[in-house]
Amino acid sequence: MEKKYRVGIDLGGTNIKVGVLDEDDKLLGKKSGKTDPYKRDWQEVVKDMAELTGALLAELGIEAGEVLKIGIGSPGMIDHINGVVKFAGNFGWSDIPILAELRRYYDVPMRLSNDANVAALGEAVAGAAKGARHVLLVTLGTGVGGGVISDGHLQEGGSAGAMELGHTLLVRDGEECTCGRKGCLEAYASATGLIRHAREAAEADPQSKMHELCKGDLSNMNGRIPFDAMRLGDAAAKRVVDNYIRDLGEGIINFINIWRPEKILLGGGISNEGDPLLDPLNAYVKPRAFAGERGYVAPIERAVLGNDAGLYGAASL
Amino acid sequence: MEKKYRVGIDLGGTNIKVGVLDEDDKLLGKKSGKTDPYKRDWQEVVKDMAELTGALLAELGIEAGEVLKIGIGSPGMIDHINGVVKFAGNFGWSDIPILAELRRYYDVPMRLSNDANVAALGEAVAGAAKGARHVLLVTLGTGVGGGVISDGHLQEGGSAGAMELGHTLLVRDGEECTCGRKGCLEAYASATGLIRHAREAAEADPQSKMHELCKGDLSNMNGRIPFDAMRLGDAAAKRVVDNYIRDLGEGIINFINIWRPEKILLGGGISNEGDPLLDPLNAYVKPRAFAGERGYVAPIERAVLGNDAGLYGAASL
Repeated sequence: MEKKYRVGIDLGGTNIKVGVLDEDDKLLGKKSGKTDPYKRDWQEVVKDMAELTGALLAELGIEAGEVLKIGIGSPGMIDHINGVVKFAGNFGWSDIPILAELRRYYDVPMRLSNDANVAALGEAVAGAAKGARHVLLVTLGTGVGGGVISDGHLQEGGSAGAMELGHTLLVRDGEECTCGRKGCLEAYASATGLIRHAREAAEADPQSKMHELCKGDLSNMNGRIPFDAMRLGDAAAKRVVDNYIRDLGEGIINFINIWRPEKILLGGGISNEGDPLLDPLNAYVKPRAFAGERGYVAPIERAVLGNDAGLYGAASL
Repeated sequence: MEKKYRVGIDLGGTNIKVGVLDEDDKLLGKKSGKTDPYKRDWQEVVKDMAELTGALLAELGIEAGEVLKIGIGSPGMIDHINGVVKFAGNFGWSDIPILAELRRYYDVPMRLSNDANVAALGEAVAGAAKGARHVLLVTLGTGVGGGVISDGHLQEGGSAGAMELGHTLLVRDGEECTCGRKGCLEAYASATGLIRHAREAAEADPQSKMHELCKGDLSNMNGRIPFDAMRLGDAAAKRVVDNYIRDLGEGIINFINIWRPEKILLGGGISNEGDPLLDPLNAYVKPRAFAGERGYVAPIERAVLGNDAGLYGAASL
């Protein structure tokens, strides 16, 4: 029996998603269920992963013996070497030996990696960076995540807590980061950072159109509002967006000076802003990267796989 | 004839050094000559590399047919894929196809890489990081250089101008860097940065012992003087050293959050300061790395191969 199908599992705070890829990296089907990590033991979550996998394989008419490998992408701090979730704050998990448990159900090679790494790998396998050997994905959500493929190898670091691209410095002694350090890129370039800065700017300017767009309550602020207000000619919002582009741009310049990726992708909620974000971001970054015109600076583009990136990537670990 | 000897060439601003390693990574011998890149064509420099190699092989009784490969470490911006020195400011070189030229003399596999990369590889092959698969070397000299081994692979990036660890941000809009950007780590953590900050501190404090140690002329400032003055109880010098350790530490924290190396090494002139630098640096870095006690933070140590790191590394490319 030819082992030609790969299973990818995307473990999220809300849902467990499972997908099956064939040897051409085609996603043959997917299935999902609730994660509910707070309502039950982690062993139950792993059991659901196994059952969703079994149900999907059955639907697709694939036998367990045809499965080449299973990969899991998980949020949190991952010990990829031992297949352990060292810490996942949004699950309340510490030192969870997730692969050892899943091996009770399937006897195939398995790998576990961080969700941002997995998303980068997904884009490199089947998305916007298909075929590229040097890839950077920066995800702009609640935090700033990142994944890197270097010379075809997914970068996972020497031990748990690596590739935390959001926790590199933008401003020494700058704004407080959730990690305890001050001035991390994440404190500025995450959706959370953007929203905080937009709120502060609106508070300081009672005339700002951001108040209307928040329906008079700044707790309604989201990552789109400063962009929308800027397009309405709001000066305070434009400053927020300009600063955001500068800060994200400075972070990306750091990563260019380290990896010189062939492909630079943005994912996560803020990336949906599209060209109004990408055009000024590219204009900011290109002339400031090390060695100027002598060096190649890849254009910053949007990731294309969206929520499926995790399935493609996990199946390809 | 068994191909078991590797030639390493360390191309420096002053000297060309050539070494031969055996299959046990033992440096069997070395030879050097002047580089003189401004007095002559680059082809002459390459010819000298070939002649030094030939002379050394002859001395060691090794025939050309026993040479497995030749590697070169060069300063500047290196296109490692095509074996071209894209730019080396201190040689006045642009787009020098150094490997193509050296192939006129030897018909063996050849590689070219940046000198900081090569030094990291040397330490990983035969030095302080021997046997480690995840290595970070930060060199503190005129600039801040860096080399990384990730999962056993030397990191060279997707194109020329990668792994410029000194050109990542410490302070957005901070002090001017030679690269044109503001606030790079190099502007703070290089010997040049330390000397500049020490001079500024001495200028601001006529009582500082740094004046005596500079023999009354601050143009005599060097990287040792602030450390020596601190040990004499000089408060201005202590502030300079404390800030230096903070700044270098913040840069190293960034690299830990990216790579989680098993081995973290310091090289270059400033690293000779030894424990008075390393002890407070380790104390600064360890609690501030991402995920605190949950993550492994390797102790920062001194590189051990000194000037020979380039030979070991180049021969191992």
